[in-house]
Amino acid sequence: MLNIQENEKVYSFKNDYSEGTHNNILEALLKTNLEQQDGYGYDIYSKKAIDILKKVIQDEEVDIHFVSGGTQANMIVISSLLKPHESVIAAIQGHINVHEAGAIEATGHKINIVETKDGKLTPKDIKVVIESHTDEHMVRPKMVFISNSTEIGTVYTKKELEELSISCKTNGLILYMDGARLGSALCSKNNNLSLPKISKMVDVFYIGGTKNGALLGEAIVINNPMLKQDFRFFLKQKGALLAKGRILGIQFYELFKDELYFKLAKHANEMADKLGGEIGKQGYQFLTPCESNQIFPILPNSVIEKLSPKYLFYIWCKIDDNNSAIRLVTSWATKEEAVDGFINDMKGL
Amino acid sequence: MLNIQENEKVYSFKNDYSEGTHNNILEALLKTNLEQQDGYGYDIYSKKAIDILKKVIQDEEVDIHFVSGGTQANMIVISSLLKPHESVIAAIQGHINVHEAGAIEATGHKINIVETKDGKLTPKDIKVVIESHTDEHMVRPKMVFISNSTEIGTVYTKKELEELSISCKTNGLILYMDGARLGSALCSKNNNLSLPKISKMVDVFYIGGTKNGALLGEAIVINNPMLKQDFRFFLKQKGALLAKGRILGIQFYELFKDELYFKLAKHANEMADKLGGEIGKQGYQFLTPCESNQIFPILPNSVIEKLSPKYLFYIWCKIDDNNSAIRLVTSWATKEEAVDGFINDMKGL
Amino acid sequence: MLNIQENEKVYSFKNDYSEGTHNNILEALLKTNLEQQDGYGYDIYSKKAIDILKKVIQDEEVDIHFVSGGTQANMIVISSLLKPHESVIAAIQGHINVHEAGAIEATGHKINIVETKDGKLTPKDIKVVIESHTDEHMVRPKMVFISNSTEIGTVYTKKELEELSISCKTNGLILYMDGARLGSALCSKNNNLSLPKISKMVDVFYIGGTKNGALLGEAIVINNPMLKQDFRFFLKQKGALLAKGRILGIQFYELFKDELYFKLAKHANEMADKLGGEIGKQGYQFLTPCESNQIFPILPNSVIEKLSPKYLFYIWCKIDDNNSAIRLVTSWATKEEAVDGFINDMKGL
Amino acid sequence: MLNIQENEKVYSFKNDYSEGTHNNILEALLKTNLEQQDGYGYDIYSKKAIDILKKVIQDEEVDIHFVSGGTQANMIVISSLLKPHESVIAAIQGHINVHEAGAIEATGHKINIVETKDGKLTPKDIKVVIESHTDEHMVRPKMVFISNSTEIGTVYTKKELEELSISCKTNGLILYMDGARLGSALCSKNNNLSLPKISKMVDVFYIGGTKNGALLGEAIVINNPMLKQDFRFFLKQKGALLAKGRILGIQFYELFKDELYFKLAKHANEMADKLGGEIGKQGYQFLTPCESNQIFPILPNSVIEKLSPKYLFYIWCKIDDNNSAIRLVTSWATKEEAVDGFINDMKGL
Repeated sequence: MLNIQENEKVYSFKNDYSEGTHNNILEALLKTNLEQQDGYGYDIYSKKAIDILKKVIQDEEVDIHFVSGGTQANMIVISSLLKPHESVIAAIQGHINVHEAGAIEATGHKINIVETKDGKLTPKDIKVVIESHTDEHMVRPKMVFISNSTEIGTVYTKKELEELSISCKTNGLILYMDGARLGSALCSKNNNLSLPKISKMVDVFYIGGTKNGALLGEAIVINNPMLKQDFRFFLKQKGALLAKGRILGIQFYELFKDELYFKLAKHANEMADKLGGEIGKQGYQFLTPCESNQIFPILPNSVIEKLSPKYLFYIWCKIDDNNSAIRLVTSWATKEEAVDGFINDMKGL
Repeated sequence: MLNIQENEKVYSFKNDYSEGTHNNILEALLKTNLEQQDGYGYDIYSKKAIDILKKVIQDEEVDIHFVSGGTQANMIVISSLLKPHESVIAAIQGHINVHEAGAIEATGHKINIVETKDGKLTPKDIKVVIESHTDEHMVRPKMVFISNSTEIGTVYTKKELEELSISCKTNGLILYMDGARLGSALCSKNNNLSLPKISKMVDVFYIGGTKNGALLGEAIVINNPMLKQDFRFFLKQKGALLAKGRILGIQFYELFKDELYFKLAKHANEMADKLGGEIGKQGYQFLTPCESNQIFPILPNSVIEKLSPKYLFYIWCKIDDNNSAIRLVTSWATKEEAVDGFINDMKGL
Repeated sequence: MLNIQENEKVYSFKNDYSEGTHNNILEALLKTNLEQQDGYGYDIYSKKAIDILKKVIQDEEVDIHFVSGGTQANMIVISSLLKPHESVIAAIQGHINVHEAGAIEATGHKINIVETKDGKLTPKDIKVVIESHTDEHMVRPKMVFISNSTEIGTVYTKKELEELSISCKTNGLILYMDGARLGSALCSKNNNLSLPKISKMVDVFYIGGTKNGALLGEAIVINNPMLKQDFRFFLKQKGALLAKGRILGIQFYELFKDELYFKLAKHANEMADKLGGEIGKQGYQFLTPCESNQIFPILPNSVIEKLSPKYLFYIWCKIDDNNSAIRLVTSWATKEEAVDGFINDMKGL
Repeated sequence: MLNIQENEKVYSFKNDYSEGTHNNILEALLKTNLEQQDGYGYDIYSKKAIDILKKVIQDEEVDIHFVSGGTQANMIVISSLLKPHESVIAAIQGHINVHEAGAIEATGHKINIVETKDGKLTPKDIKVVIESHTDEHMVRPKMVFISNSTEIGTVYTKKELEELSISCKTNGLILYMDGARLGSALCSKNNNLSLPKISKMVDVFYIGGTKNGALLGEAIVINNPMLKQDFRFFLKQKGALLAKGRILGIQFYELFKDELYFKLAKHANEMADKLGGEIGKQGYQFLTPCESNQIFPILPNSVIEKLSPKYLFYIWCKIDDNNSAIRLVTSWATKEEAVDGFINDMKGL
């Protein structure tokens, strides 16, 4: 894993957290630095960030809490809302199933895994799980975990989310959306959702900052009044209540006061669209549709080998003996010349 | 709890995390901001911070990991090193016993509580706990948790720590030091310990950044080779592996490259010493000796009431019907004129 | 601990689970043995036992579940009724605090310990705990755990329990009674409670079988409708749902169909009363009042040493250099001639 | 689920725990009933049972502990041997994956699920899981859970177990066998394993009593010396240490002192073989090979409906619109006339 880039000529498409943060955020940290503020999220910047988020979400009744990262958000939301015998349904690709080192199970809860091709859950998936859990010898499925955009770059449409939301309500399930890359999802060319719409359809979700221009930080939004009680206890118990909570408040205030959040996501998507469009023009297929800031072109292994010295990216999976899917991720900070360079280098192969 | 300071004339001695961070750190964040770095602590700044810390500790063999806060550090260290039936011994004032919302028990472990006056544990305390745990109907005490400085401002001497260390080794106990305020402890006028000495005497400890000038961050140092294995799994599972781990590395590099950490702590202590000295001269007693950046003067309630409109501080405990102990905390950012003002205001009462 | 009695001349007052079970129970097991019955508590004997218990408790609305032992009962009740941040208040002598190997903490919950002399909690104790838990940096006390009779042989009076019950209701606390020795408590000469009265005053309790004549088994009784949901899931998840649940049902049916339960407890108490009365006549003091089947005489160490070759009992605690309190436990099966022998042997010293 | 058999004419093939216990066990309980014995497994019968089991296993070095049931055994073994970040690999049909209400996850551990047709794991399955878990963002697979016989009636051959054992050793994995139906497996017509052979190949396993003639009880056998430490703490902490542990010791002593255990299993298998043989002769297929006391004939739904009023059994799964697989389970107590009756009734349809 240790992959320190000492060669300045190498450009990374490995992830969307390679750079620091947008300049506005750094300036705001600087400007407010020596003010005395209350700790643990009771500073005025956290308050201002919550106020602006409520406006953007168009709902004054939601509860909003800031945490440091996505695994922390998932771990706290899921463990605090489920009783010991209750489980959470997730796609097999779901972050909580694969890439959180068993964080959810470590809090005592089973994940009911659903095989999917595109990383998205449907009411039919939910039905199958519910119907196969019939009595107290099994766990009781109580929550549905979805990611938007998904871990493989796809985004939910309004219709898909509405149907899922209705299915959850009908079955008494909590619908929870992991929005680590929600900015990119909402700025997708295929998107017809919005923060207010999403907020009405899910019980709880989080708006990811880390992967869209913040130094760190995710904003958990709780809609369902049944789920709001005592949430700060859960934050504290899981080590998520930062003493200098101001640094999360300041960042989210900056991200949302002038739509910076969406501008950053839009840039990331444009870079991905350009990459994906050009790779497509060269006749390559993709593992999943190019909809957000993560794209998964299927390339000959020989091409991958030639690109590797100049660009960093993950080889996602083997397709056949000669071809693999790679993951290219763009971000708010991706330089267009790097994208152009990548495309040109591909053409030159 | 919501105590936002809108009145500029109010000065806070409530804690040591009211301000942001030292300017060096902000500048370093700015300077490195757009570099592409690997995530999750594999950036070069985390590497450089680890290198410098190893030099300061004078031990190349320690393992060092950065996390976001003290409760997170305690929760991860304790839960990852203990087996399910093992418990941790702590003073009744211990942070893990009182102020972590049950974080340790939430990971499955009992805290064996020891009554103390000064917040410090002794070999005799350990002996009593060990001797009263005789068989499998009880938990097995396996770790000793101490804080330096303690939650009530006292510091361990070299002799005290040595004796405790020997007692732990003799009894097969892991000795763990919570160093949320280790800077202040090491710069105490009563201190005769050092990072290298501490590191030789404890199995694991953490060096607190949040309460000594960082935006956030604590450096966990593992000495005992038996305790090093797979630690990054535990970090990830508890949501502590920041995607942009660079922000922790950058801060600790800045704090330790030129002894900034100790300069900041020294300032905090000087401010506390001045406060404590002057209050003592006015004839007041203290709940515990003034040794670090937290002091606990016992004041008449009438005096407390008169100070309250201008200064923020916690009323720690009731002493009798007319007197209470308050907690005054100073920090790297405490202004000397505020200290002078407080003293003058007391004199004027 | 290994203390196998190979010497037939040694008689044990160590506990109330040294013998097997009452003959009625063995006969009922024999008689029903080859009937085919549904598993996991859905047999007709469990149903009949529940029916008769509801009559004895005089409440058709309670939910009743059978488990194998006291630690299992406590672990399941407490972990299933508390949310992650909620704690349980218990006397320092409480079984869950001392003798369950950290079972409660292992399910994630802190025990708020209260120092008591007689093992009983009062509204004042509750008040102190509640008032010292003020915010989300601490756990939230949500349940009160009491044992009747207590771990040191005392019993709650009607007045004491009423006051505690009101205190719990007022403070939104769940009141849970561990009835491992409830039979002995209810047959105490100082008792003025009954199963129906207790059931109206506590939210949940269990009626202990193991220590009052059953081979194994405790009956958990849930009064509070809010606490009934999904309880069988918790039983299953903690490994408490016996495939041949019939063996628990058969036993409780036998214990309660003709008041056998109370007859057995009465015998145990009579034996303890005789022991306690005679020891008292010899001028010895007791650690706690003799009220149930556990008594704690304070004897000179020389006397204890002389009794030890013929009688098994625990030395409970040191009183001073020359005297210790021992624990003598009687049971449904204690032979009066052994009691007489013990008394005579004491007289002869 | 509530399915009480009030109609005497109905015969149950639902499971192998419908009846009580073998008469030898009842007689032994009766005979030893009034002896005073030490509690919590320190009685002489538990000691004798352990001695005889060590002889049968042909290994004096194993550690043996008795618990009440299979879920309890699995929960304790797995949670006590794994560290927080370690996971257990199991077949999708594995009891821990499906029918333990999330007991394993409730102790904090992920189950890595492997799709299988016959419920058995192979070295290839293990390899796939190991190779897909590459770093600290995922759990670390550390244990392999197998059942013999499996949950769908198949048994492991010596060759299969040897290969799996080698694979586990090579990969540093603990091999754990759930022997809820180990008696039936070892008496299968296809078996070429034995208790001594199994014991040499696995790190830990349990010998099921409940499903082979005991009232309750499973014997956990620990071979690997690394896994023996402090096991009684884990038993106590999970509520598994019965005060009257004698009842488990007495039963296992009776089951193994004259090979009763194998005689009972042999009878169960003979009844299943007869059922399976005759159903096969009638031209029906089976979901899995008939190897133990659980068989899974695929029958037309019309046939199933006609059998239902007279026989109890589970409908295991739908095969197509007209056919389903049912599960027929025989036991030590299954009456041959009931088997004959079932066969005749099928013929008469």
